[in-house]
Amino acid sequence: MVMKRISVFGAGRSATALIDYLKEHAESNNWQINICDADENLAAVKCAGNERCIPHKFNAENITLRNNLIEESDLVISLLPPVLHIEIAKACLRYKKNLITASYVDDKMKGLDKEARAAGVLFLCEMGLDPGIDHMSSMLIIDDLKQKGATIKSYRSSTGGLVAPESDDNPWHYKFSWNPRNVVVAGSADAQYKKGNRTNFVPYKLVFKHIDTVEISGLGQFESYPNRNSLPYEELYGLDGIPTLYRGTLRAPGFCSAWAALVDMGYTSNTLFIEDYSCFTYRELSKILLGVQMKDLDRSINAICNEDRNTRSRLEWLGILEEKTISIKEGTPADVLEHLLLQKWKLGDNDKDMIVMQHEFEYELSGHNFKLVSSLVQIGQDNIRTAMSSLVGLPIAVYAHHLLERGTTLSGVMIPVHREIYEPVIKRLAVLGIKFDEDVKSID
Amino acid sequence: MVMKRISVFGAGRSATALIDYLKEHAESNNWQINICDADENLAAVKCAGNERCIPHKFNAENITLRNNLIEESDLVISLLPPVLHIEIAKACLRYKKNLITASYVDDKMKGLDKEARAAGVLFLCEMGLDPGIDHMSSMLIIDDLKQKGATIKSYRSSTGGLVAPESDDNPWHYKFSWNPRNVVVAGSADAQYKKGNRTNFVPYKLVFKHIDTVEISGLGQFESYPNRNSLPYEELYGLDGIPTLYRGTLRAPGFCSAWAALVDMGYTSNTLFIEDYSCFTYRELSKILLGVQMKDLDRSINAICNEDRNTRSRLEWLGILEEKTISIKEGTPADVLEHLLLQKWKLGDNDKDMIVMQHEFEYELSGHNFKLVSSLVQIGQDNIRTAMSSLVGLPIAVYAHHLLERGTTLSGVMIPVHREIYEPVIKRLAVLGIKFDEDVKSID
Repeated sequence: MVMKRISVFGAGRSATALIDYLKEHAESNNWQINICDADENLAAVKCAGNERCIPHKFNAENITLRNNLIEESDLVISLLPPVLHIEIAKACLRYKKNLITASYVDDKMKGLDKEARAAGVLFLCEMGLDPGIDHMSSMLIIDDLKQKGATIKSYRSSTGGLVAPESDDNPWHYKFSWNPRNVVVAGSADAQYKKGNRTNFVPYKLVFKHIDTVEISGLGQFESYPNRNSLPYEELYGLDGIPTLYRGTLRAPGFCSAWAALVDMGYTSNTLFIEDYSCFTYRELSKILLGVQMKDLDRSINAICNEDRNTRSRLEWLGILEEKTISIKEGTPADVLEHLLLQKWKLGDNDKDMIVMQHEFEYELSGHNFKLVSSLVQIGQDNIRTAMSSLVGLPIAVYAHHLLERGTTLSGVMIPVHREIYEPVIKRLAVLGIKFDEDVKSID
Repeated sequence: MVMKRISVFGAGRSATALIDYLKEHAESNNWQINICDADENLAAVKCAGNERCIPHKFNAENITLRNNLIEESDLVISLLPPVLHIEIAKACLRYKKNLITASYVDDKMKGLDKEARAAGVLFLCEMGLDPGIDHMSSMLIIDDLKQKGATIKSYRSSTGGLVAPESDDNPWHYKFSWNPRNVVVAGSADAQYKKGNRTNFVPYKLVFKHIDTVEISGLGQFESYPNRNSLPYEELYGLDGIPTLYRGTLRAPGFCSAWAALVDMGYTSNTLFIEDYSCFTYRELSKILLGVQMKDLDRSINAICNEDRNTRSRLEWLGILEEKTISIKEGTPADVLEHLLLQKWKLGDNDKDMIVMQHEFEYELSGHNFKLVSSLVQIGQDNIRTAMSSLVGLPIAVYAHHLLERGTTLSGVMIPVHREIYEPVIKRLAVLGIKFDEDVKSID
């Protein structure tokens, strides 16, 4: 078997499962794997114990190394921060190499589509969990239903990166399995979705008050809040004219009301920069944000919590009402909140995370109405081999494997909504234990 | 008398009074005036009837013209949009010419300070109304009080660009005399000020609820809301250690509560971009922003107005509760509001504007406490020769006159806080009818 070379740029947390998979299959497939990271030690640690794996110290400025590695590769994978993909992509164009990333297609990447087609190379983006597995698992069902002649009337999909039930020991029922900053400012965007043929617009300040209940078999009820703009998925998924189209984010019951109280208070705001917190307590910052006298603070907090004791106790647990000096030097309320959450919501040494994804379809087939629920629940192995890391890395890994074995005739900038891409990935993920449970019932 | 050349870049609305002044004094001082604007007709109109005035069609890209005009000039004045000053300033550095602007000193301009000093040229910024006359009139009092040996304990200054009483015919008692966009997003910034030796931080959502009453002799009461960050003025004005330091913006009574309701509703937000308003009424947008059912809209509006009928009637007058199709194609709530206000708050053909500025000082002198109130009230001549245009343009004009007659030994990037600058300007403005009334009383 002829040797094939894979270059992986970025060896951070989300690369663990990907690199493990590639290492495991390197010998039997005669692969050589370049692991490139700005942190030389990290690259070396990820390569450890496998002589087919070669660590490289790589900075974005090191153009010669980048070009040399890409030129000698059969496939390139980038898990670098999204802004750095574009230079990797341009080099892939130059040397006519296929590229896979887990990031959203941005305008710069989209701008390479024509050239990628002309060069006959595939730039496959959004190959992680969300975006990634959400596209593939949804499209498998959508294409199957269409093939049967069904009319899809409703698509509602929600995903959550949560804490496993056995590690759930705080009143928010939440811990971090990804970038904490993103969680603090998450949803600091407006949302749009379709329901009953009407577009619903949800301003940021209402996003966490605009929640739905989602029942996950075996786990009970969750809250789902609308995840940014769902409307582009009508075209992306070929669901033209569908009356109901909603994408949401899952949280434990009670989370959203408490987070809405933080939003109302202004704790997710990144504009009120305070230069010196040395004489400030958390309680004083809360008072300033509410614009009340200290004697009225408790009443005001209760009002913002809609007099709900559980919501209030979640705020108290975070420490924002404590008479303790704020432990960062300077920053915005969002910085203060992020710093508190980093400690409070840290995935502990013995903790496991949990990913939940559920799609609900309603469709008509031969004059009857059906509801199809497809759910994925994955619990991490430990606080390094998280479910998040597996579900972001393994779709890339198994499609990389497929591509090196079989090649592809696809070219251009793509996301995995084509059967030729998602089918082998979904099949192979199921073999690895990542599989959706499907339930169909009549709703006539 | 040797001829001197002045080049004015930017001939828009705020340049009217400046150009009128220069034209009026051109013959007796042997000046030649270049009026440069991207709009050739505008430049020609502004030059009309005065052969010492030469119009130039000028775009920022036209480097040759810019350099030629600056090289032959004795003084350069820029009323271009702030981002365009820097290239003018660099050319002034190259040809060693003094420059005056009405804009805030930004980091780029500040970065030229050392070179300007080395070249022995003066880049005098913030020479309009606010910033401009506020600096000069305050510093005159501050330096006088210090000279007498007084200790200044409190400085509170508020300015408003308002509508003249005789043209005041709407329930907000407000019309536009400057950039409408700035009014809509004005105060979409947090505020800070000092009171009784404590710093007060005011988050944006509370700015219009955090108001003070200011009494203007002959005009009655106004509301003042905190204008961004007042703290830097402690150093800028040499008020180190002053216990109370506040800068505010003046509005008619009731304005701030009604504007606070618009902020609460989300009408000043620039993030919820809606692509198609063709099927939307103002009432529906209000409903979306509040996140309520249509049947609950009125109750919700009343709650946001704190059940105040006057506040509600101001909102109604704007039209945001009407069942009329929104008349812009697409945009954010701030775009919709701006479009409504452009019609509602337009300075009519027979309308006049009014500028009000008032400084209140409290100081101790020889063991006694005094309060000094210094006020300026100016009413425009008509809707072109506005008070706003005079007060922005004339300080530049009279300092330009002074500079061409007497020269200066000052150099570097400056704002008019030095006696050598503000004294001749304040004196000359008084001759032109722009003068402050001063009232001092004992407050022991």
